Amino acid sequence: MMPGGGEFIGGRVDHLPTPSLIVDIEALDRNLRALPALLSGTGIRLRAHAKAHKSAEIARRQIALGAVGICCQTVAEAEAFAAAGIADILLTNQIADAAKARRLASVPQDVRLGVCVDSQAGLELIASATPSRAWDIYVEVDVGGGRCGVTDPVAATALARNVTNLGLNFAGLQAYNGRIQHVPDLRKRQEAVMTTAAATRAYLDAFELEGLRCPIVTGGGTGTAAFDKACSTINEVQCGSYALMDADYLSLEMPAQSLFEPALTVLASVIAVAPGQAVLDAGLKALAFDSGMPLLRAFPGFAYCNASDEHGVIRAADGGALPSLGSRVELVPGHCDPTVALHRQIHAARAGVVEEVWPVLARGHW
Amino acid sequence: MMPGGGEFIGGRVDHLPTPSLIVDIEALDRNLRALPALLSGTGIRLRAHAKAHKSAEIARRQIALGAVGICCQTVAEAEAFAAAGIADILLTNQIADAAKARRLASVPQDVRLGVCVDSQAGLELIASATPSRAWDIYVEVDVGGGRCGVTDPVAATALARNVTNLGLNFAGLQAYNGRIQHVPDLRKRQEAVMTTAAATRAYLDAFELEGLRCPIVTGGGTGTAAFDKACSTINEVQCGSYALMDADYLSLEMPAQSLFEPALTVLASVIAVAPGQAVLDAGLKALAFDSGMPLLRAFPGFAYCNASDEHGVIRAADGGALPSLGSRVELVPGHCDPTVALHRQIHAARAGVVEEVWPVLARGHW
Repeated sequence: MMPGGGEFIGGRVDHLPTPSLIVDIEALDRNLRALPALLSGTGIRLRAHAKAHKSAEIARRQIALGAVGICCQTVAEAEAFAAAGIADILLTNQIADAAKARRLASVPQDVRLGVCVDSQAGLELIASATPSRAWDIYVEVDVGGGRCGVTDPVAATALARNVTNLGLNFAGLQAYNGRIQHVPDLRKRQEAVMTTAAATRAYLDAFELEGLRCPIVTGGGTGTAAFDKACSTINEVQCGSYALMDADYLSLEMPAQSLFEPALTVLASVIAVAPGQAVLDAGLKALAFDSGMPLLRAFPGFAYCNASDEHGVIRAADGGALPSLGSRVELVPGHCDPTVALHRQIHAARAGVVEEVWPVLARGHW
Repeated sequence: MMPGGGEFIGGRVDHLPTPSLIVDIEALDRNLRALPALLSGTGIRLRAHAKAHKSAEIARRQIALGAVGICCQTVAEAEAFAAAGIADILLTNQIADAAKARRLASVPQDVRLGVCVDSQAGLELIASATPSRAWDIYVEVDVGGGRCGVTDPVAATALARNVTNLGLNFAGLQAYNGRIQHVPDLRKRQEAVMTTAAATRAYLDAFELEGLRCPIVTGGGTGTAAFDKACSTINEVQCGSYALMDADYLSLEMPAQSLFEPALTVLASVIAVAPGQAVLDAGLKALAFDSGMPLLRAFPGFAYCNASDEHGVIRAADGGALPSLGSRVELVPGHCDPTVALHRQIHAARAGVVEEVWPVLARGHW
């Protein structure tokens, strides 16, 4: 029989079957407190991005520590988090499918629900599903991310006016720039935040000229929150990765006061040892590699060199002692969001003992 | 409510929610027939690698077309395929954990079960779990892959002798070289197969000298099967990707008679359109990127340029007409195995209509 989850509670992390996803509850808690502390007194509220962790338990902790609610990236996530009792959800994405608009409209009325639009056709899809619920409509604007979003202020104000004309609630702007989150150099990232803020302000100026109020201007992320708070453009940040962190975010230069720590690891076993290398049972199906290789915890001289579906080869740069056959190694993933989505559950641990097992919600769904 | 699976049967593929995994049953069937045809008369048997598709339905078709059984890469896969009625399973991997050895030993006795060992410690783990079942023990040898496997013929024969001394059934050698499967140039790949065959033969010579019979020598894959059949070293191939194929394997130069075709796609929707680009709802959580970008079907002038968690940006090299908002695009993944593992189900379609929905087994499990 395949093991499930509950039987691991109270057991040692290093007795878990591998590869397993581990969250250190104490590190998580410090991260969850560090961001509200950073934002304290700035007037910027936090709407935590739940795509990073896909966990209702983490979302509840974020809200208990002051987040106004969560962001989701898919309709399936919105459905799953609503079913888990999260009462304020913003879908930071576009809907271009009538069936998905209807599913989103079926999220219970007692959940405050927001959704983004960046085209008249998208707005009409949402409007056609509207009779069944009230929701907040955000006009997504491209502030340099080059992905979704209206690309000029005139079109943005026209779309916002159409929101109001259709009797819907225009809630503000989705002004997220994903590109700038991962700029390694602190000063260059700060400059990129200023450029993004200027682009955002151009939209806000157009809205002011038209007499359109933007109650919420939402954007920002883990990489930029420390600078976003200094600009007077956005009043809500959408940080997600700060909760769990990953090797990519850890590699960025950060101002001292915003240091988050790695709370997420993948536990792997050494399944083979050969001269100069060891083979782990965590590869492409246990770790995301899009943002670089995972880091090895407790084996600083070793590098994860090569991944296949269920194998990872590690080698010592300096010929250091290899971990022994059957021993456990913890890896900090290169990118937390897609790594979490590979696993069915999170083993939440304190001081090396599994305290809770949290399901990963809406994985592989749409 | 989240859609499940059965309600899609009989509906059009392009009405599925996105991102969805699609298998074209006719292309799959041609691939499944092409490999046995290639091997016909060579005395080489096929043991299809099920890690590529994680689908009991595809495994059953492979066996119906002559495969002796399947390979799995994890204990969870072996458990799931055994539970689905697959009667001959080889775990082409090492076990370094007593609990996993016990789980493997609990696979019902009526399943013929093989497992690999490459160390005395690994062999002893298997032996300690043995009282509960009979199984075939393969000594894994490193024939150039640089991953698992005994690295010299003397150690390999000693380990095989220990298998027999422990009263276990020594079934042969696991002699797989993953590195050479993806060599783009046909002639260089053929040379690499010859080098691998020579390395394999060195082990076989040592076994012969010691008077140890190797009934099965298993290895090879989709990239090398056409050449493996010409060498008289392995008598079983472990091809997996041939069933579904992917952009990486499609990019390899192939001899005419072994051409497999893409049977696997990810259906995505266009959720935003801007000058020169469109944004799809299939990104890092719907497609694997370790072996390169996905290819767009039916939009030959377009390239998939940039992936984030739930977004993919496509651009036209030649300024061609963009797909319209809400339209569907099919993507051929860069790497089939980890792409399948991202999805909960496969939509098996014929002529654009969903005929069956197949669960993806043992995803995110260990």
